[in-house]
Amino acid sequence: MLRGIGASSGVAIGIARVIKKTSEVEKVLIKDTQKEIERLEKAIELAKKEIEDLKVSSKENIGEKGAEIFEAHLMILEDVEFIGAIKEKINTEFINAEYAVKLTSDEFAQIFINMDNDYFKERAADIKDIGNRIINILLGKNNNSISSIKESCIIVAHDITPSETAQMNKDLVLGMAANLGGKTSHVAILARTLEIPAVLGLGNITEVVKDGDLLILDGDNGLVLINPSQETISVYKEKQEKILLEKRELLKYKDVEIKNKLGRKVEIAANIGNPFEVDIALKYGAEGIGLFRTEFLYMDKTSMPTENEQFEAYKYVLEKMKDRLVIIRTLDIGGDKNLPYLNLEKEMNPFLGLRAIRLCLNKRDIFKTQLRALLRAGLYGNLGIMFPMISSLEELKEAKNILKEVERELEAEGVEYSKDYKVGIMIETPSSAIISDILAKEVDFFSIGTNDLIQYTLAVDRMNQNVSYLYNPNHPAILRLIKTVIDNAHKEGIWVGMCGEMAADVNMLNTLLEFGIDELSVSPPMILKLKKSSGQAS
Amino acid sequence: MLRGIGASSGVAIGIARVIKKTSEVEKVLIKDTQKEIERLEKAIELAKKEIEDLKVSSKENIGEKGAEIFEAHLMILEDVEFIGAIKEKINTEFINAEYAVKLTSDEFAQIFINMDNDYFKERAADIKDIGNRIINILLGKNNNSISSIKESCIIVAHDITPSETAQMNKDLVLGMAANLGGKTSHVAILARTLEIPAVLGLGNITEVVKDGDLLILDGDNGLVLINPSQETISVYKEKQEKILLEKRELLKYKDVEIKNKLGRKVEIAANIGNPFEVDIALKYGAEGIGLFRTEFLYMDKTSMPTENEQFEAYKYVLEKMKDRLVIIRTLDIGGDKNLPYLNLEKEMNPFLGLRAIRLCLNKRDIFKTQLRALLRAGLYGNLGIMFPMISSLEELKEAKNILKEVERELEAEGVEYSKDYKVGIMIETPSSAIISDILAKEVDFFSIGTNDLIQYTLAVDRMNQNVSYLYNPNHPAILRLIKTVIDNAHKEGIWVGMCGEMAADVNMLNTLLEFGIDELSVSPPMILKLKKSSGQAS
Repeated sequence: MLRGIGASSGVAIGIARVIKKTSEVEKVLIKDTQKEIERLEKAIELAKKEIEDLKVSSKENIGEKGAEIFEAHLMILEDVEFIGAIKEKINTEFINAEYAVKLTSDEFAQIFINMDNDYFKERAADIKDIGNRIINILLGKNNNSISSIKESCIIVAHDITPSETAQMNKDLVLGMAANLGGKTSHVAILARTLEIPAVLGLGNITEVVKDGDLLILDGDNGLVLINPSQETISVYKEKQEKILLEKRELLKYKDVEIKNKLGRKVEIAANIGNPFEVDIALKYGAEGIGLFRTEFLYMDKTSMPTENEQFEAYKYVLEKMKDRLVIIRTLDIGGDKNLPYLNLEKEMNPFLGLRAIRLCLNKRDIFKTQLRALLRAGLYGNLGIMFPMISSLEELKEAKNILKEVERELEAEGVEYSKDYKVGIMIETPSSAIISDILAKEVDFFSIGTNDLIQYTLAVDRMNQNVSYLYNPNHPAILRLIKTVIDNAHKEGIWVGMCGEMAADVNMLNTLLEFGIDELSVSPPMILKLKKSSGQAS
Repeated sequence: MLRGIGASSGVAIGIARVIKKTSEVEKVLIKDTQKEIERLEKAIELAKKEIEDLKVSSKENIGEKGAEIFEAHLMILEDVEFIGAIKEKINTEFINAEYAVKLTSDEFAQIFINMDNDYFKERAADIKDIGNRIINILLGKNNNSISSIKESCIIVAHDITPSETAQMNKDLVLGMAANLGGKTSHVAILARTLEIPAVLGLGNITEVVKDGDLLILDGDNGLVLINPSQETISVYKEKQEKILLEKRELLKYKDVEIKNKLGRKVEIAANIGNPFEVDIALKYGAEGIGLFRTEFLYMDKTSMPTENEQFEAYKYVLEKMKDRLVIIRTLDIGGDKNLPYLNLEKEMNPFLGLRAIRLCLNKRDIFKTQLRALLRAGLYGNLGIMFPMISSLEELKEAKNILKEVERELEAEGVEYSKDYKVGIMIETPSSAIISDILAKEVDFFSIGTNDLIQYTLAVDRMNQNVSYLYNPNHPAILRLIKTVIDNAHKEGIWVGMCGEMAADVNMLNTLLEFGIDELSVSPPMILKLKKSSGQAS
């Protein structure tokens, strides 16, 4: 039995297919460096073509937005520094292209690994993936080992790269196990989206498991069992069936409508953090997108996303949701989320610092580019724009003024944009809750962000183990603030949703319905659980 | 003209007296190490005696508590590591005692200087002070150069040590200027308490100024003017007179009573951070101590203060204030204030972390020792105990339970303690303000700590320059919370004070009186300004 990181929940039982992909590369001294560089350049061109093809198959397998990671790969292949370093090694050390690629990709990957940051560690994997691809082409080997799978199996690999997850036929992959990777890796996110159980960070599973071994993969507990006994298999089969039954059972609640104490239907919407999650949201019956976090656009990049990149992402979700409301939150960076390329100052108390709307009002170019993309995308669906971390009326007015300014600019440029969108704010600072009567006159909706609201109201950083015991959603001050916000909103005729974790807490549901909440936005898999727990099933 | 750090405000005009105190020490190789160590030990004994005497003269000059710094000096003289290091140098390097002391005190001081922390830099000065004292005794020189002043003058020195400020006749010292020192140094605190203008951190004033030069010292602007023109002298004389007049003018308001909108007298109390400040508080007519910060007891030490040390400090202030209420706040460490010897974990968001009452409930020994000292000292005056950073009813109840436990323990031990004291809390988290109706049933008074209340309510770290523009005491959410707290308190029949900076903001006074505030606690020099601004003078 091996222990790793449970990266995608569920149980898989099946035959192991061990993917060996890192080709052995030997150092060969060469004389004709020009010829070697030509070999390299040809291989790079072929690699680009392979990746372009992957983008297409990835779109088919996991949707348009899952293919985005290949953009990053193409960028690496066009990076003059990276390619230049390989060529320099060939020229100055008189070594074969394969070995020069290996040395260079190892070097570049190591730089990212040394940054000791999960995000950069994943970027190191991207670089190694590209390096291996070029090497395999140079060696005349097949790059598509995962894509060659023809029967149901559990994939066992050293590292499962983004390109591999895109190539695989998801109907045949029962589960995924890898030596490397963690909860925030690409493969983990994709596995969760595809609902394929995955255990990562296993260390040496490729050495322990042989092709054809029978494996049980327990994604909830991060376990891999190798050639288990019949008894264990029976236990896990039962577990598997139970999970399946629960899922099937839950689907019965898809059309349940929850009503609040005012007798109004409560919208059950989804929180998503990536465009392709909209598919799973729809599958679980999301009645809208209550929170579309846009940070993924900024965090998966080495520079700011362009207006068009953003436009495409927003449009994708808006189109999928048709007439259902899609609330897109403007950039919520800062606090615990940093962007390396923004060079933000280190702050003593980042949660009380330059974050979210404060950062956007400080860096207007970034903000205006996002607003342009949002207004343009608004033509393709039912758009709500939401500002995070508003703490005063002045801030809200300033944000709205910039929005109007962007409208005027688009108008002047003759660019088509939506004039029919909603504007709302997150209620997550105590001050915004306390003056919600004033703020309600300025917006179309509120969405209560309970995580931050609780943190600030109780002055508790819940990530801090020494004080997290004080983080209490049931604190009377929190309940009073929520009730105040709902009452104030209703007095001004606007609706109030909730997108923090409290929205998904089935124990809080009755209280929130009692207060008259109008919308609850939760992670897609929670939608049905919430509907079930409402006890209002027919 | 020299620019330095204005450490104590006001203008001084007078003749410079340059204090040369660092004796030149030569390295001499010796044979009889035993004899040298005997010389050293004799000098240490004499140094101890000198310091004991200093404690006495210091009590006379600046009050009981100003003499406390000499306790630290005596501790250094009894530090086996420090003395041991000197002796080892004599024994192994065969050098004279003077040189061994110099080497050792330089070494130890450097360790503190390297810590790059204002507090430790000041401790380095203490060690050098002690080193010089021993060296001067060994050399047969007079240690008391500042104490030998016989005429009015402005003291100019490399560094003004705590022992020097204690020795000086404050009636003769018009001002102080020094190469070293900053706003948080001992000498700065003492100068402010004694109301002697001081400019520190001047770099090389001892090289630029000669004995007998005429100096103007501008403590507000951190300037020293050397042999200025008659015109400049006239300008500064006018300024000096204006300051004097203002002070005299302000004293007229000493007996003014401020009334709130309910017609009740508003108590104007003092915030103090050190026992000896009680004298200046009384001078300005403080009607009580609204906030006695106890951190000085913990921060001026290398280990926890003993119960008796604390008892003495509390008793001193309680006795001085007689029947007037003295509100002593329990330890408010954590956040931006750390105690090196507590080894607190570094926190991502210290303002939302383990601080104040949270730390005390976590480290009960520290808390109970303080409560014991408080209850014992309570016999000597009118005691109020105040808990900081309360965010929930449970926390308050826990703190009160521990207080009861301490009472029972003192009872069981037969130790005398006060049974007639008041218990209150700081209202500085949004949650405590929001549930002040609930908390009011549990305490005798509230004191609103506006600095933190504003920070948390608006989610703004005001020390963070990027967001400090959002720190707004006039934010309607803040005013509503304050009004809520006052109304809730009055409904439960308890009084509400305020000890944050807003209490000293003359522009807020009318609003607070309108809300019905019962007490305002401000830094001593603000008491009269507040009374004057109330416009309620007869």
